[in-house]
Amino acid sequence: MSFAAKHQSVVLIGSGNVAWHLGRAIARAGHPILQVVGRNKQAVTELAHRLQTVGSTQLEEMVPTAAVYIAAVKDDALPLLIPRLTAVNPHALFLHTAGSLPLDVWSQGQAARYGVLYPLQTFSKQADIDFSAVPLFVETAREEDMHRLTTFARSLSSKVFPLDSERRMKLHIAAVFANNFTNHLYHRAARLVSEADLPFEVLLPLIDETADKVHRLLPHEAQTGPAVRNDRRVIDSHLRALASQPGAQRIYELLTQDIHEQHQPRS
Amino acid sequence: MSFAAKHQSVVLIGSGNVAWHLGRAIARAGHPILQVVGRNKQAVTELAHRLQTVGSTQLEEMVPTAAVYIAAVKDDALPLLIPRLTAVNPHALFLHTAGSLPLDVWSQGQAARYGVLYPLQTFSKQADIDFSAVPLFVETAREEDMHRLTTFARSLSSKVFPLDSERRMKLHIAAVFANNFTNHLYHRAARLVSEADLPFEVLLPLIDETADKVHRLLPHEAQTGPAVRNDRRVIDSHLRALASQPGAQRIYELLTQDIHEQHQPRS
Repeated sequence: MSFAAKHQSVVLIGSGNVAWHLGRAIARAGHPILQVVGRNKQAVTELAHRLQTVGSTQLEEMVPTAAVYIAAVKDDALPLLIPRLTAVNPHALFLHTAGSLPLDVWSQGQAARYGVLYPLQTFSKQADIDFSAVPLFVETAREEDMHRLTTFARSLSSKVFPLDSERRMKLHIAAVFANNFTNHLYHRAARLVSEADLPFEVLLPLIDETADKVHRLLPHEAQTGPAVRNDRRVIDSHLRALASQPGAQRIYELLTQDIHEQHQPRS
Repeated sequence: MSFAAKHQSVVLIGSGNVAWHLGRAIARAGHPILQVVGRNKQAVTELAHRLQTVGSTQLEEMVPTAAVYIAAVKDDALPLLIPRLTAVNPHALFLHTAGSLPLDVWSQGQAARYGVLYPLQTFSKQADIDFSAVPLFVETAREEDMHRLTTFARSLSSKVFPLDSERRMKLHIAAVFANNFTNHLYHRAARLVSEADLPFEVLLPLIDETADKVHRLLPHEAQTGPAVRNDRRVIDSHLRALASQPGAQRIYELLTQDIHEQHQPRS
């Protein structure tokens, strides 16, 4: 396979957390990144420096010769950008990275080749990540672009799966439960620990083991605690102790009820 | 310090997950375990074998010469057991391991020396655990027993904290959020992933990173996703996609609202 076929020249649109980590993975895989384009001047400059390429805050300055344009921007921003983005090089392959934007959001643009490259991970600039272990989910409008996108994705990660838009949204919702909502429960736990005059760190071994356990057991099998035992004495004493925190109390009640229902023997 | 002062002879009451791991830690620290007592004959036999001691299913057969009796039994069972347990050796030190049972549950017994040894971790027999990293929370009725219990607890773990009953219940509720409820969100995420025809394993890098991140950032700082951005378009599309799972939909709505409220700028 020639260099030209194996490596794709890329323009990266966006300078947030996804662009930060995806850009690094693309550069490390040897794909030339021709440019970073975004609205936030400081973030664009930093990311362009990280990727040893040039940055621009002007869509009009976008390099028109790339093989692949990857938009890692806010969900709200993408639909508005698509007509102008695709006009730059209607023959290129256009990709977005969003979990809940359907493939056909691209259909309002001028390009015929487009798709999705969705990385299932939580990214923050402070934290390095092993991108080769990040599951990537791919979808293209044209069947013939699927092989090309899959090859590109496999140069970034060892875990690449085809996934249509409807299933990708389900996966994104699953990620909201497993990351956003889980992190919020950590926050609620942190408040309670602070009320007990203890540092948040006392919870870390428990948080780690909770995550570790589902490597060995399914979550349904790993469930413990007063809700699954339906231990009303403990549940009621906890609800009373939460009287001063109605938000935490509502979450406690609803999740206790849902655990109880999900663990009923099916008739 | 003499062997007799340093090591405490122990009778362990209970043969569940806590007894399984706590018993092993006690034996490894060199404290002689004189007996395991419990209702479940098979579990008692297995745990006694693991701890190289004798087992009994009869309270009447309980060895009366131990220095410390540790009850690691269900919360509901303990109050009923206390009169008979403490009658065996009213001069010994009696401990329970429950997060939400107050210290004074022991006051209905015949012993004057009693306390609590609460390990903050989720235990299951299948999974080995580094007990020396498990935070232990201690409380005693008499001030003069506190030193003895603390010394004993420090022989099991490097993280020992004094904690009164009211604070211990708050900590237990925090653990319900950080473990039981978090694990249930994993279960809800697993159902969604299965609807997307994907294996649960695709979520593991995200689950791991979510837990890892709060070693470096407070949960409040680590929060990402549509709820904290108040991205109504994504939130509404997720709620529509969850129409066939009212349980998941209710959790999504409540946690989204609570994230939004907890991240409002305080006035």
